[in-house]
Amino acid sequence: MEMPPPDTMVLSAKARIVAALHGLLPADAVISDEAETRAYECDALTAYRCPPLAVVLPRTTAEVASVLRLCHAEGVPVVPRGSGTSLAGGALPTADCVVLGVARMNAVLETDYDNRFVRVQTGRTNLSVTGAVEADGFFYAPDPSSQLACAIAGNIAMNSGGAHCLKYGVTTNNLLGVTLVQMDGTVVEIGGPYMDAGGLDLLGVICGSEGQLGVVTEATLRILPKPEGARPVLVGFDSNEVAGECVSDIIKAGVLPVAIEFMDRPCIEATEAFAKAGYPMCEALLIIEVEGSPAEIDEQLALIKTIALRHNPVEFREAADEDQAKRIWLGRKSAFGAMGQINDYMCLDGTIPVSSLPYVLRRIGEMSKEIGLDVANVFHAGDGNMHPLILFDANKPGDLERCEALGADILRLCVEVGGCLTGEHGVGIEKRDLMSVQFAPDDLEAQLKVKDVFDPRWLLNPAKVFPLDATASRRAA
Amino acid sequence: MEMPPPDTMVLSAKARIVAALHGLLPADAVISDEAETRAYECDALTAYRCPPLAVVLPRTTAEVASVLRLCHAEGVPVVPRGSGTSLAGGALPTADCVVLGVARMNAVLETDYDNRFVRVQTGRTNLSVTGAVEADGFFYAPDPSSQLACAIAGNIAMNSGGAHCLKYGVTTNNLLGVTLVQMDGTVVEIGGPYMDAGGLDLLGVICGSEGQLGVVTEATLRILPKPEGARPVLVGFDSNEVAGECVSDIIKAGVLPVAIEFMDRPCIEATEAFAKAGYPMCEALLIIEVEGSPAEIDEQLALIKTIALRHNPVEFREAADEDQAKRIWLGRKSAFGAMGQINDYMCLDGTIPVSSLPYVLRRIGEMSKEIGLDVANVFHAGDGNMHPLILFDANKPGDLERCEALGADILRLCVEVGGCLTGEHGVGIEKRDLMSVQFAPDDLEAQLKVKDVFDPRWLLNPAKVFPLDATASRRAA
Repeated sequence: MEMPPPDTMVLSAKARIVAALHGLLPADAVISDEAETRAYECDALTAYRCPPLAVVLPRTTAEVASVLRLCHAEGVPVVPRGSGTSLAGGALPTADCVVLGVARMNAVLETDYDNRFVRVQTGRTNLSVTGAVEADGFFYAPDPSSQLACAIAGNIAMNSGGAHCLKYGVTTNNLLGVTLVQMDGTVVEIGGPYMDAGGLDLLGVICGSEGQLGVVTEATLRILPKPEGARPVLVGFDSNEVAGECVSDIIKAGVLPVAIEFMDRPCIEATEAFAKAGYPMCEALLIIEVEGSPAEIDEQLALIKTIALRHNPVEFREAADEDQAKRIWLGRKSAFGAMGQINDYMCLDGTIPVSSLPYVLRRIGEMSKEIGLDVANVFHAGDGNMHPLILFDANKPGDLERCEALGADILRLCVEVGGCLTGEHGVGIEKRDLMSVQFAPDDLEAQLKVKDVFDPRWLLNPAKVFPLDATASRRAA
Repeated sequence: MEMPPPDTMVLSAKARIVAALHGLLPADAVISDEAETRAYECDALTAYRCPPLAVVLPRTTAEVASVLRLCHAEGVPVVPRGSGTSLAGGALPTADCVVLGVARMNAVLETDYDNRFVRVQTGRTNLSVTGAVEADGFFYAPDPSSQLACAIAGNIAMNSGGAHCLKYGVTTNNLLGVTLVQMDGTVVEIGGPYMDAGGLDLLGVICGSEGQLGVVTEATLRILPKPEGARPVLVGFDSNEVAGECVSDIIKAGVLPVAIEFMDRPCIEATEAFAKAGYPMCEALLIIEVEGSPAEIDEQLALIKTIALRHNPVEFREAADEDQAKRIWLGRKSAFGAMGQINDYMCLDGTIPVSSLPYVLRRIGEMSKEIGLDVANVFHAGDGNMHPLILFDANKPGDLERCEALGADILRLCVEVGGCLTGEHGVGIEKRDLMSVQFAPDDLEAQLKVKDVFDPRWLLNPAKVFPLDATASRRAA
């Protein structure tokens, strides 16, 4: 028998899959036109791009199940997608995949203030979860910087955090249950609005699994009563290390601010030029916010002030009113945008024991000088989740490569001091090859075996999270 | 070939395994004498007993690995055991099993106050974890009633809670990492003293897995700075339902006491007769404790008082000093002992949404009357974790069976209102057949498949947690 030329084969396979998808979903829920699929070719890690074979935008759990069942039967890889805000390439397609976007599944399904939870479809954006309950005095705690856009589905996939997670925890601490569609189309309910359910608790392994185990279509989320008030202070220091020591001492003292944010001089300078928040020009500053009743706020801030003053700050500024509070936060919230105005940058996400902050900051400074690329630091210092921004020039040959090399070295340093590769952005494609720095072969094998259970054909979000050489035989099988 | 008689076969198989165990461990770490193994024939669910084939008491992770490797190769089931305080039969042996007790592995391996964690061997008792750090002002939060005796290994296996877990969470919220020995002897490190580590987070599924996935030999535990002070109040009500409504209102208001304990009249009466704590004779009482600085305590208690007074309590008693605080807790802490003095009882562990407390308490009262067995309620009301005690007479034919039937009905009720079978005691053998009330077949199958990964031959803690009919083919394979 004569074979058709290869590109005809690909085309006809594509046509067959697309036709089958149309048989399952309404016409407007399947995108296969090349110009339109291009909108899904990347996420927020824009250095990597690849248009998918097709995109589906289902509206119900049943539709998701039907798509997965088809792709499973046909051996077609599936890349789940929330809002596409991943900084680690978590939603990057492959050319032969169907992108399954949950953006149209954004309903609030149940609100229960007595038991303090909401149940939502996971295409709902992070901020609009709070939006649905704030008139009644509640909020959803995890607050990634992208919270206006990012979907709960992605928050669950990446176990997302945010500036205010020091006190309230990250996604895994606020997620009570999920509806998970497995690759073969099976729908399972995991957890719910109660404590520990008996049997094996699969919720923890689903949270942060980066779309490797299934598609989460519905989620039960813990909501919290809004605190009476909040007040930030800004503390400036004449060295990174002293600022790091101050953070460490606050944590050690057992004070629990909702946020401790850290910015170093390169970041302060860029931010001031951009946002004009009136920050002091110093080597490092901390923004520390506490919440509660006025009495609680006074008491916590007094303790924080005592600790901060022991480290001879060059500035200690307490917000006297709402307006001053906003100004204190303004610069921090503009920091990433400000850096983007003047530089290309790569944002890291390593996490370290808080007591290692001074050492790690010093080493990053040294490594930055050695390689000749500036590093600006702006991050959630309270929980040790660092976001060093390596500045480079994308138009200068070799700069990106040097930047990636420095990034890998900094992440190795994080692991070396007892930390880890990623606090909240996920591994994606960005850090997959560094996973073997973090995990011994047996540790990694235990993870791969769990992936095997949920997705025996390795079709879900392929070639992410795990080092390619460790998974090659599985993916080929 | 002529076959030896069956009991000789068993004997010689036992002799061979015991000899092999002696080859791996020091002489005093292997117990095979029938009189001595009898000490391990049950845990705190004493209605079920079965002496094991042998008991090993290893001292290191390497010794644990060598025992598991041997048992895996020989197809010998292994029942892991902490201190044997399980109320659900979690450590009940089978006749053909090796009990692997971790009691001798009780060292503190690392203490890090800067980053607020300790690393211990898991045979260490719960209370002695706090004991190791309290001189420096820290404590380990989960506090099961058995904390003087129970081991961290068992706490992790059952995801144990305790009276003070409303604020600080249960074991899973305070566990940072584990060293896990898998059934084939492979040792893996999971988690550690940092946030979310990237890749699949297996820590959540290990915690609460009741010895189904491996033996946890070392654990990294979050420790917290001791609060400045704590103060309980006692509030008496003339009905269970009103007390339940008060709990629900406190939770809804967003106050976060460290404990809200509930006792009903049968429990108050038994306790008073036994401990003479000076409790008011009323239908229901709450013990509510708050922690913090004196100002924080005053503020929280004022809010709690306002809410409580709206429900017309028959008594509102605030502890004025340390001595009065102790008296308030005395009765609660004696409650189980007091009930045991006058009755046989079965202690349930269902968990429900807090807002369902009034309804569930009323239904339990009705069901108790219908079947003719008294039920005393004493439990952690703040997180909806109920411990109804069904009173029966073990010497009266048929009483135990009626008690078990009522217990199952009460647990079904918990699931019906959106709760679950077990808050902190685990499923063990006690509730395995009720798991299908909680989980649909596909939900359960997802759990079984994860068990398959860690223990393909189903040798670890056999015939527990899952309904026997759902696992028969796997266990036989």
